[in-house]
Amino acid sequence: MSRQQRDALDAMLRSAPRSQTPPTVEEQRSGFAAAFAGPAPQGIVTRRTVLGGRPALELEPAEAVGPGRLLYLHGGGYVIGSPDTHAALAGELARRAGLRAVSVDYRLAPEHPFPAAVDDGLAAYRELLERGTGPEDLVLAGDSAGGGLTLATLLAAREAGLPQPAAAVLFSPWTDLTLAGESMRSKAEADPIFTEADIRAYADLYIGAGDRANCLASPVLADLTGLPPLLVQVGANEVLLDDAVRLAGRAGAADVEVTLEVGPSLPHVFQHFYDRLDEADAALDRAARFLDAHLSTAGRRAADHLEPAH
Amino acid sequence: MSRQQRDALDAMLRSAPRSQTPPTVEEQRSGFAAAFAGPAPQGIVTRRTVLGGRPALELEPAEAVGPGRLLYLHGGGYVIGSPDTHAALAGELARRAGLRAVSVDYRLAPEHPFPAAVDDGLAAYRELLERGTGPEDLVLAGDSAGGGLTLATLLAAREAGLPQPAAAVLFSPWTDLTLAGESMRSKAEADPIFTEADIRAYADLYIGAGDRANCLASPVLADLTGLPPLLVQVGANEVLLDDAVRLAGRAGAADVEVTLEVGPSLPHVFQHFYDRLDEADAALDRAARFLDAHLSTAGRRAADHLEPAH
Repeated sequence: MSRQQRDALDAMLRSAPRSQTPPTVEEQRSGFAAAFAGPAPQGIVTRRTVLGGRPALELEPAEAVGPGRLLYLHGGGYVIGSPDTHAALAGELARRAGLRAVSVDYRLAPEHPFPAAVDDGLAAYRELLERGTGPEDLVLAGDSAGGGLTLATLLAAREAGLPQPAAAVLFSPWTDLTLAGESMRSKAEADPIFTEADIRAYADLYIGAGDRANCLASPVLADLTGLPPLLVQVGANEVLLDDAVRLAGRAGAADVEVTLEVGPSLPHVFQHFYDRLDEADAALDRAARFLDAHLSTAGRRAADHLEPAH
Repeated sequence: MSRQQRDALDAMLRSAPRSQTPPTVEEQRSGFAAAFAGPAPQGIVTRRTVLGGRPALELEPAEAVGPGRLLYLHGGGYVIGSPDTHAALAGELARRAGLRAVSVDYRLAPEHPFPAAVDDGLAAYRELLERGTGPEDLVLAGDSAGGGLTLATLLAAREAGLPQPAAAVLFSPWTDLTLAGESMRSKAEADPIFTEADIRAYADLYIGAGDRANCLASPVLADLTGLPPLLVQVGANEVLLDDAVRLAGRAGAADVEVTLEVGPSLPHVFQHFYDRLDEADAALDRAARFLDAHLSTAGRRAADHLEPAH
């Protein structure tokens, strides 16, 4: 039904101008910002704040009631992106879930390599708890590197003896800095955005000569025991497909509740395109319903306005 | 919330009497029938019939309206089980999805080894189409070996040039007769029902000296291109966990829409226990909603009575 929408999106992504020489980090950041930075969706009040010692963007949808909170960690290969490039995505997820959200401007590589981002994710999570949000009222979400960082934050919280949140949603998470997924090669042609070389370049900037198999850098290699219910959404047209599939397997191996959704012919973090792609719209609704269903009775609102899943 | 229910089920399954000597096939069949054979749930009219040349059980819920049909393939290692042992499970799924169902008494091994079951599955599917059910009104479901057989039937239908149905649901599917899943070993202690030796014994009876990597015997090894949307549900306490996880990966690799749900601390085909286990009840509701959502507008009924997913 949305084959036309998917084809149009794929063509648009493939038509992005590629420079002859690899862009600098600054060029990547400004290009990403030009493509994605924009206001939060209508009806969402935004506010600059500080969380865990880092700048952050609060997103307060008119629909938010109760104590439920969403901590959002944006994508961008640990190198680019910001709460502003992801205000629409984080805001739309928050609006549909009826949650106040905060999106953290964690430190980026190469200026601040691993584990700076994990330290900032953990500090943000810790401060939300210290400010009085109960873990049963708190959910996490992230996309791409922000999905990997969400998992790393959960693992770091576990190691620090902090309680786990109620649930987490991961959009196309990058979970393996060793690039061992078979899709890294098998989906090279199908992926309209990334090549293995692109992903490797981000890994080089983030961890350099460090241990790429470190569990906080490659959480798919970690023992995931004790993590909260996870919803993982991924497109089939992604070199990162197997980062999501293997994560689901590892979660199951550790007796963690996990749902994996693979969307055919869809690109990396297709949820960005909820305004032009039916699958993105439906996926965001399912993600919102998943978060809502796992919050405490006090923290949740009945997401009755959402279409039933599937 | 249902930790107590899950623990009770686990204890019940582990307390099943184990004979000192391995039971014969006939003892396994009668024991399985004694444990599971029973009437279909209340409000479902059953009728003996023939489909694709094999005996079959029609299940007609009072809720069924419209042309939508469910073809159900029961589990039992290709060796035991029947439509009667699975009348409750198939009937309950049909009732919740608002579909008339037919469950096929396909030929069992060792009397009828591979590919007899696949031939019967394909013959049943073909006859439903020939009788006038459109593929857009037809869905498949199966559990355990019946889940693998459902996939084999879809692959055989594709090879035969038949159209694919609207969707398929797989409960704890056994998809790999080569037993290559890591969970075959890693979940040995956690699985209250099966050991690797049990699974291997079924494989020996079904395929003997044949090629265990044949795609119609081990569909996880097949190219799944062209298959319809799949919902795969599996427990984390299963040696067959990785049969489901790898299936989801293979489906995604082939650009097939797939949702994988892993339920923590749950055993093989936990959906059988929908009357005593909240997770089973919820999983059946999600499966019913998935089938309903993928049927044509004519074939589906709005499953408004179901709780929203998650």
